[in-house]
Parts: sequence; C-alpha cells; structure tokens
Amino acid sequence: MTAFVFRRQTTVEFGHCDPAGMVLVPRIFQYFDTSTWMLFEAALGVDRRDFTATFGILPLVDVKANCVMPLRFGIAIDIASRVTEFRRSSFHVEHRITVDGELAVEGGETRVWAVRHKDDPDKISARPVPEDVVARFG
Amino acid sequence: MTAFVFRRQTTVEFGHCDPAGMVLVPRIFQYFDTSTWMLFEAALGVDRRDFTATFGILPLVDVKANCVMPLRFGIAIDIASRVTEFRRSSFHVEHRITVDGELAVEGGETRVWAVRHKDDPDKISARPVPEDVVARFG
Amino acid sequence: MTAFVFRRQTTVEFGHCDPAGMVLVPRIFQYFDTSTWMLFEAALGVDRRDFTATFGILPLVDVKANCVMPLRFGIAIDIASRVTEFRRSSFHVEHRITVDGELAVEGGETRVWAVRHKDDPDKISARPVPEDVVARFG
Amino acid sequence: MTAFVFRRQTTVEFGHCDPAGMVLVPRIFQYFDTSTWMLFEAALGVDRRDFTATFGILPLVDVKANCVMPLRFGIAIDIASRVTEFRRSSFHVEHRITVDGELAVEGGETRVWAVRHKDDPDKISARPVPEDVVARFG
Repeated sequence: MTAFVFRRQTTVEFGHCDPAGMVLVPRIFQYFDTSTWMLFEAALGVDRRDFTATFGILPLVDVKANCVMPLRFGIAIDIASRVTEFRRSSFHVEHRITVDGELAVEGGETRVWAVRHKDDPDKISARPVPEDVVARFG
Repeated sequence: MTAFVFRRQTTVEFGHCDPAGMVLVPRIFQYFDTSTWMLFEAALGVDRRDFTATFGILPLVDVKANCVMPLRFGIAIDIASRVTEFRRSSFHVEHRITVDGELAVEGGETRVWAVRHKDDPDKISARPVPEDVVARFG
Repeated sequence: MTAFVFRRQTTVEFGHCDPAGMVLVPRIFQYFDTSTWMLFEAALGVDRRDFTATFGILPLVDVKANCVMPLRFGIAIDIASRVTEFRRSSFHVEHRITVDGELAVEGGETRVWAVRHKDDPDKISARPVPEDVVARFG
Repeated sequence: MTAFVFRRQTTVEFGHCDPAGMVLVPRIFQYFDTSTWMLFEAALGVDRRDFTATFGILPLVDVKANCVMPLRFGIAIDIASRVTEFRRSSFHVEHRITVDGELAVEGGETRVWAVRHKDDPDKISARPVPEDVVARFG
C-alpha cells in the first residue's frame, strides 16, 4: 500500500447515463482510467503527454468494479485512487468513488509496466517497474 | 452453469480503440452489456424493448474482466455469453471473447433481478428470479 | 446573440482519443452536450438534475462541427458556449473550442424546447421558450 | 454523386441511449464513422486494418447531422452511406439513417485525404485523392 493518494471531484454527466438514469458501468471504467493517468502524472511529475516517451505504456490486464450505490445523472462524485501494490513488472491501482463521503463504487486495475519494441510497435514487452518510480509513490 | 450460450460476432471498430491502437477497456464492458441484453432476449424470447415492462431491470453490482490478449482495431471477435449461476435474486453472466478460437478476454457480471417502485421510480428493490426464467436457460 | 457566455476548461483524456492520437469526433459532441447543460444551469440557476422537472427536455435536432485543428491527447482546451438565437420553440447554441487562444473547433446545436406528455412519456411536444428563460440569457 | 452505396443494419443498444431513452447524439457520429470505414473497405477492397498503410488517414474536418425522428433503444436502423463528392484532396460522405424506410437522421462528413510524415508522425499533409480510388466509387 503506497502513501500517495490522488483525489479528484467530477460530476456524472447526462451523456454518461443510461435509460435507467444511472451511470453506464463502462463509463465508470473510464473514470478509473482517467484517474490512473492523473495519479501517475501527479506522483511522477510527468505530463501525461510525455509519459509514453519517458516511461512506456501501462496496458490493463485485470479490472473490476463493485457497485454499492447507483450513480445518477448530475451527482457530484469524489474519486480517490492509489497504487496498493507494486510487483516486479506490474502494479495494482485501487479506486474508490464516494458520494457525500459514502462509498458508491470500489474498483481495481492491474496494469503491466511495458514498452513497445522500436522496430515493431505492435510488439509489447513487460519491464521491471523502475525503483525511482516506486519511490515516488512513497 | 446453465446450458444456454449466446454467441455473436463483431468487429473492433476504430472508435473503440485508444491511441495505443487497442480496444479501450471500458468498451469491452459495453460489449458485455450488449451481449447480456441479447442473451436474455434470445433465452426468454422477449424483445429487449419490452424487457423492463415484462420483467424488470438488471442493475450491475459486480463486473470484471481479465485481458489475456490485446484487441486491435479491425479484428473480428467472437463473444460467447452464458449465465453461470442463478441465485435467489441475482445471477452471474460469464463472457468470453475469442479471436480465431483463442481466448482474448474473460469477464463476468453479477446483476440483480430488480423492479422499480411504481410510485417512486428512483427506488429499486430486488425480487426473486422467476422460476420460469431460470427454466428457460436450461 | 445573447450576452451570457459559459466557459470551461478541460483536458483531452486518453479514452477520448482514437488510434491516430486525436480526439474522436463523436467525443467533441459530448463536450458540446455537457457544456450546454452547464450553460443552462449557470444561466438559469437551476441544478441540471431538476432541469427536466422545472422546464422540460431539450432534444437536439441539428448539430455540426468544423474542426480547424486536431485535438491531441493531454491537451488543455477551453470551451466557450452561448445561445446565439432564441426562436419561438427552439434555440441555437454555439460552441468554440480553443487551445492557447487559437480556435480548434467551432460547432453548433439547434435544440427544441419540449415537454413529455404526462400520460404517454414517449410523446414529446415543442413548447414556446418561456420569456423569463430568454431574459436570463441577457 | 458516386454510385456506390454501402448499407448496413444495426440496432440501437442500451448503452447508446441517454436518460431520455433516446440515442445520445454523439453515438450517431460514431455510427457514421463506422459506416465510412466500411464504405471504403467495401468500395476499395482493402481491409480497414491495412487502410492507413495502403492509403493514408482520413481526418474529419466538417461533420453534421439533422435528426428528424428520435432513435429509441432497441430499434433496428438501416444506415446508407455514399460519397457525394470527391474534391482534389477531400471528399464528402452522406449518411442516411432510416427506420422502417422512414428517414430518421441525415448527416454528412467532409474528410481530408491525408498522410502522416514519416519522420514526424504528428505532422499531417493533405494529398490529392488518387484517381483509381475515385474510379472505384463509380
């Protein structure tokens, strides 16, 4: 469990909701994805546009969400994200969406620390997570 | 594990892919959602437009995916979906995405069998899954 | 041309971009939709969650965009939106996306001021835009 | 007006609809985008995965839609697409969405025929549309 937590506030948009008036679950994973980018940007001090050039790519291998409370159109949500574990060449990010302090969705992403091959950009290889990256997360 | 399997073929669209040229993971959950609708439509013989009026709604509580192989733009995928378990008022759907017979993504959704309150459509209550619904899945 | 302009800043997310690394055009229309909701919320002082109950719905009939400059992942954009014309039962919203003060996308939406029929929510009828709504936009 | 028309049938998915139960307009532009890819694939006989390597990219500059009839969840739609004009280094695609033969949405896209610079993939230049491409559309 790392110490660094990235927290952001956003609103559930009309275009994120389904005919039942609740957030479409795929959108929740997009909230997670955006938060992971912002978490790494904040922890490492690297603009997300330069991330791939500086470090590599972070393909998702495992992702899940547990929806405790429906998220309705127009609701203000708080998303708190942190890396709960760094393994050799992968890591796990935990996301918690709360509404007025109450847990609404809990989720997790396991991502690989990887690079593209220069001569064949379709080929991707896992790499050890650099020690100074781990250090930045406390 | 029910016997009824719903299988469909589709293609990974340009608009489903991210700058890395791979399907954005949230899109995979939309593939799952669409397949669940089609699975119930096929098993129960009820047009999805009439589903809510006939049965109720199926809010997602748990959802996950394990990505074994990246899905690239333009690839033909096969999605096979089936209910692996009916519980009292919920059920679990398993989705398997394959490419040329090889597993690419494996995922699952746990959904509640629920109805909206007539006098307060914002209120939702779980209901036992009807026996004839379970029977239809074999 | 009304006087009230709603302006917001946002960032082009990874999940909004296509394999060419540029914003997928459909996403631009979602930026517009969100801005229109925020514009009306700001001008009328009505929470977007209460908008439908207080006023009605605003179905889009015409929408267009002219893309002058590609929007890339991670770029900070500024979206300025205003109602350029109120007609009897419709109105036109103009959206301008700029990057560092330079125009990137210019777009417009024509929407109808409408209500749902109470006895048949599938039926929608146009209504004159209320005078006090027009007045609020200056 | 070219002779080649690409027509496909699809269904309005749950995840494409908003809390009003109608297709979210940005999704309509995604229907258009997918149809344009399929139109070129069909007319030119080139797999969309090889399109960029064979020809180039087709950035959108102008796009619009006129919504005559709301598209509701579960409705079967027919999308007919054709190039209405080839200019020197751009072209216009017209899309018509019908429901049971009745026009629901009419739209258009103007795209540039372009290539990326090999030494700087962020740079894009317009190119004349090849004559044999134009010929293929009749």
